[in-house]
This record gives sequence, C-alpha cells and structure tokens, in this order.
Amino acid sequence: MMEQTIKKIKAVDKSITKEVEAYLDTLTKPPGSLGRLEELAVQLAEITGENFPQVTPPAIIVFAGDHGVVNEGVSAFPQAVTAQMVHNFLDGGSAINVLANQLEAFLEVVDVGVAETIERDGLVVEKIGFGTKNFAEEDALTKVEVEKAIRVGINMSEKVIGQGAKSLILGEMGIGNTTSSSAILAAVSGAEVSKVVGTGTGISSETLIKKQRVIEQALADRRPAKDDPLDILAKVGGLEIAAMVGAMLGGASRQTPILVDGFISTVAAILATKLCSKVRDYLIFGHHSQEAGHTFALALLDAKPLLNLNFRLGEGTGAAMAFPILEASTRILREMATFSSAGVSDAEKGNAEN
Amino acid sequence: MMEQTIKKIKAVDKSITKEVEAYLDTLTKPPGSLGRLEELAVQLAEITGENFPQVTPPAIIVFAGDHGVVNEGVSAFPQAVTAQMVHNFLDGGSAINVLANQLEAFLEVVDVGVAETIERDGLVVEKIGFGTKNFAEEDALTKVEVEKAIRVGINMSEKVIGQGAKSLILGEMGIGNTTSSSAILAAVSGAEVSKVVGTGTGISSETLIKKQRVIEQALADRRPAKDDPLDILAKVGGLEIAAMVGAMLGGASRQTPILVDGFISTVAAILATKLCSKVRDYLIFGHHSQEAGHTFALALLDAKPLLNLNFRLGEGTGAAMAFPILEASTRILREMATFSSAGVSDAEKGNAEN
Repeated sequence: MMEQTIKKIKAVDKSITKEVEAYLDTLTKPPGSLGRLEELAVQLAEITGENFPQVTPPAIIVFAGDHGVVNEGVSAFPQAVTAQMVHNFLDGGSAINVLANQLEAFLEVVDVGVAETIERDGLVVEKIGFGTKNFAEEDALTKVEVEKAIRVGINMSEKVIGQGAKSLILGEMGIGNTTSSSAILAAVSGAEVSKVVGTGTGISSETLIKKQRVIEQALADRRPAKDDPLDILAKVGGLEIAAMVGAMLGGASRQTPILVDGFISTVAAILATKLCSKVRDYLIFGHHSQEAGHTFALALLDAKPLLNLNFRLGEGTGAAMAFPILEASTRILREMATFSSAGVSDAEKGNAEN
Repeated sequence: MMEQTIKKIKAVDKSITKEVEAYLDTLTKPPGSLGRLEELAVQLAEITGENFPQVTPPAIIVFAGDHGVVNEGVSAFPQAVTAQMVHNFLDGGSAINVLANQLEAFLEVVDVGVAETIERDGLVVEKIGFGTKNFAEEDALTKVEVEKAIRVGINMSEKVIGQGAKSLILGEMGIGNTTSSSAILAAVSGAEVSKVVGTGTGISSETLIKKQRVIEQALADRRPAKDDPLDILAKVGGLEIAAMVGAMLGGASRQTPILVDGFISTVAAILATKLCSKVRDYLIFGHHSQEAGHTFALALLDAKPLLNLNFRLGEGTGAAMAFPILEASTRILREMATFSSAGVSDAEKGNAEN
C-alpha cells in the first residue's frame, strides 16, 4: 500500500509558477514586498495546481506512541505522561487543543502505539503495539509493524482530506521520542550523535550525556541501513514517527500542503523524502525549534521555517502557529486588487494604469 | 493635550509578573516550552493588569500623509499613489484590507495629510495639511502642525478603544515616508545617514545615493534638536508619523497593547518612547522589515520582532501578521489545563499530581 501511495505522488505543478508570480506583481504593492507570503502563494499554487489555492480548513493530526528506550532513563517525564497527554488532548486541555480552537481546525488524535489501553470517544485507536521495544537492547519494531504504522498515517491523511481538509498540520506525542528521533537522524545522515542530540522536554546535562551514549551504543549494536528508512524506523524508530512519515506520503499523494512541526516532525520528513523525493515540495516548515538537532535536520532538507518563537513542545504546535501565514498567502491572491483594477500607479511609471 | 495623555501613562503592572509566570508553569507542557508565547502572555498581563488578558478584537489604524520631499525624486512611486492607495483601502483591495478581514479587525483609515482632497464614506478626515513641505528646502511642518497630528493619533486610539478594541495595530501610507523616517532616525540617534537609509518601495542604487544626500543636506540645513522629538518631527517628519506617535501615547495611556509594524512605525515608536519612556513596555514588535534602517531602529529599542517574513510594505501588514501570535498567547492562559486538573505527571516527579 505504501508503494501504491508513493506511485500516486506527482511532482508539484511547475507549469503554474510563472503565471502566479506574474499575477502577484500586478497586485497593489511594490513587487516582492510581501516576501515569504508571495513565495508561499506560489508554492501552494504548485502543490494544489490551482491559481487560487485554499488551505482552509486545516486538519491537525496528532500521533501518539510510546518508546521502550525510556527504560534507560533518557527523558524528563515518566512514560505514563504519553497516555495522560492523550487524555488531555481528548479533554481539550493541551496547547494543541487551544491552537486547534483558534484555527477552527479539525483535530484527530491517533493512538498508534501508546503503552496503555485507552478507550475513549474521539480517540482514533490504530494501535500497532504497546510502545516500541527498548532499542538499547533489541530492535524497536519489526518491519511489519513499521509498515502498518506508515499505513495508519496514510489512512489518516486520506480520511481527513476526504472529510474536506485542505491542508495538514502534523504533530506527535511520545515520551522518549526525541531520543528515537536523534538516533534516526544520526543513522540517516551519518552525523555524530553529539551533533543531533538535545535536551528534549528538559533533561539535565547528566541525563543528556546518558542519552547520547545510549544512542551511540544502540546505533553500534543495531546498525540501521543508512539508505533504508524502513530499516532505520524498525531498529531505532517509533510508531508515531512512522505514522507521520505515512501521513506525509498520503498528503503529498493527494496534492495537499503539509505543515511540518519541530524536530521529530522534521526527522519524519527526512525519511518521507528518502522514500519519495517528490514529497519535499509539498512540505512547509512551520517553526524552528529550540531542540538542538533541529537546525541540522532542517539543513538536510534545505528548509527555512516560517517562525522561530523558541518553542520546544511538539504536538504540532509550531506548525499550527504558522497556519495563519499560509491562510494569509492564499487570501492575498484571492482578495487583493490589481494596480489596474484599483487605479493605482505602478512603480516608476508615474501614472495610473486605468 | 499630549502632556495630559503622557501624564496618564502608568508603568506596566510588574506586580502581576511572578503570578502569571508561576501559572504558566502549572500548564500541561514542559516549563518554558512555549517560548515567546509565554513571554507575550506575561507582557500582555503586565500591560492590561489582568491575569487573563484579552487582545481581541484588534483595531488596525492606518494613517496616510504625503511628503514634500518626494519633489527631490527619492521614491519609486509618484506622490499620487498615496491618495490612490487610500481609495484602495476604502475599496478593500489592499494587503492590509485582506489581513483585516482575516483577523476580523476594525480598520480605520485616517487622512492626516494626503496631498489631495478625498471625500468618501469610511474615511476619517483629520487633515492637518496637504502633505508636508519639502524638507530639502524648508521645515516639513510647524510645531503646531506636529502637535495637531499627534492629537489626531491620540484621539484615534481613544476612539477605537472606546469602541471596544483590545489591541492596536498601527500602520501608515505615505509615498516618501522612508526618506522622512531615515532622516528622523539619523537625527534622533546621531547615526550616519548611510546606516539608516534603504531602498523603500524599491528604488535604484542611483536613487538611493540621491536619497542619502538629500537627507544629509537636510539634516545639516534644518539642524533638528536630537533630544526634542517635536522639533525633529517639525523639521524632517511627516504627519502620519506624528499621528502614529500620538496613537502609541494614546494606547499606552489606556493600558492597551500596541503592535508595531516595520521601519516607519518603529521610528515613530522611538519618538514616542523619547516623549515617555514608559511607552516602551506597551509595544510589541510584529515584523523585522527588509528596509535597511529597521535593524538599527529595533536595536535602539532593544526590540526583537516576532516575525521575519521579508516584508517591506508597511500599511500595518507586518504587525497584523503577528496578531495571531498575541491571540494564541492569551488563549494559552485562558484555555490550557494544569498538570493537576488534567492528571498529568509533572517533570521528574514520576506521578500525576491528582
């Protein structure tokens, strides 16, 4: 199924680029003076194939999963917090709920691998396992589990797009998942672990050193294949990370813009683009996180996030914060007057055009 | 009247700071993980004196005025564009209209000194003059005109706040006003003109050199008094810039958060804080503009804008783009659950608090 989805991913529509750029220059503003809003307008047109693209309503999908590697003592919070935060999402009390309300976005919470059983209205249960295995001791997942989790992500993208979502905001919750993400990033890039490891939700410098050693030892023991995203996910990955990879493939296959969140999401984006390089052009990076490895991960994708508000939270919050910028870029195209229609003089011409 | 308004400006309420900071740390997120959103929440509480501040609805006020110095050939657009853009604002076709729609903001357009007579429904006409005089030849304004324009700004702030606005987004339109702003900035800071002059709406490098020389000569001829904002405004200022100074004083006197836009707005902010240093804490900087002098102007106020989207437009657009970030910061305070209420375990404690 993943292969079928990848086959459906088309290169974005570069035939529309010049037309949209030229149209932007007819709007009542100095050429290029709306900077990245104009670049985004062009990218959204290329993604959707529409001269006047729409990104509203957005859907936020938060994938939750646990990580066996927390047994090594690498996180500031206990594993129970993953399930507790899932309850908090369902109760409407988390940061991403607040932003979903503000954006009037669909919010889907998906249990793809929480270590506890949660049965509640509103939760999408697609549990592939009760957390991953501790990758300090054994492979985190089987290849079949990775493929199933990717399928969950593909299905979720298709579901919300089928329900009318015009853009995707992807987030995650999983105590221990910065450890897994740093391991993935080191594996896929060949970078030294010290360059891609950070303090996550707020560990001490002692715990940081332990986290780094755990990852180094695991990479030496597990030996994930650099060019095989599925092998990397199986050996040191996470179910929610694999699901995000799937959601990106699914969004791209349906010509839908995808807002990428922080460190963990960007690591998922690296794997998605390894599986299909065309995915890259469907991605818009919302926020430059405080997590140490994020700058490195962004550079691998030549990505420049729209915001830097010093977040280090995840849940999709950084991506959600950037959504109003996408919305503005589409509204500029749809709603601004042209020099000609408004009777405004163009630069250095001296007279109104009408 | 300006003096009366300044007397009403109180220092922001620092007695609330610790309480709001402590409350933010009880919310279900790692402490500080929402970065600048948390800093903003604290600042907005200090400004309003409320533990749960409100910024919605915002009011956008765009002040329009012309500049005699355009006779020196310092702008990419002809003077007529100021009036044409005022018509465009009233027709709803400009970038700031689009953003006002998106934010569901009040939008007030104020003719404080456009060189043409404009009589249209929806325009606030408070015309102090038909543009400024050419400051390459004579003082731009009289001191009385400056004071009148400041009063227009104060009145507009009080008007929209009286109508229910909970925050102010200030913008401007005036062909030639980057030339005036660079002259003001050089005068108030003592900086060399070459450090504070830029390409505005898009002039050639030849015109840029001319612009710099015009400003240098004018400062030598007019000799504005470095420590007297009213003298600087009279000699090389603009009516819309003076009105923005007034609007900032008026907003601060009514404990209302003020979103500052780009280069011209920041120059107005420098003058407002010279008139009353307490104003500084009421200001939130929306966008780091592409205009060359903006970085220098921001440094004078130790200001770090929320966004950098490579805008160089004005009209309040950069400030308007940042508004959703303010709104999010207030919603986080009002809507997020606490660790205790949500039953989520706090960091490194290991157990839920409830």
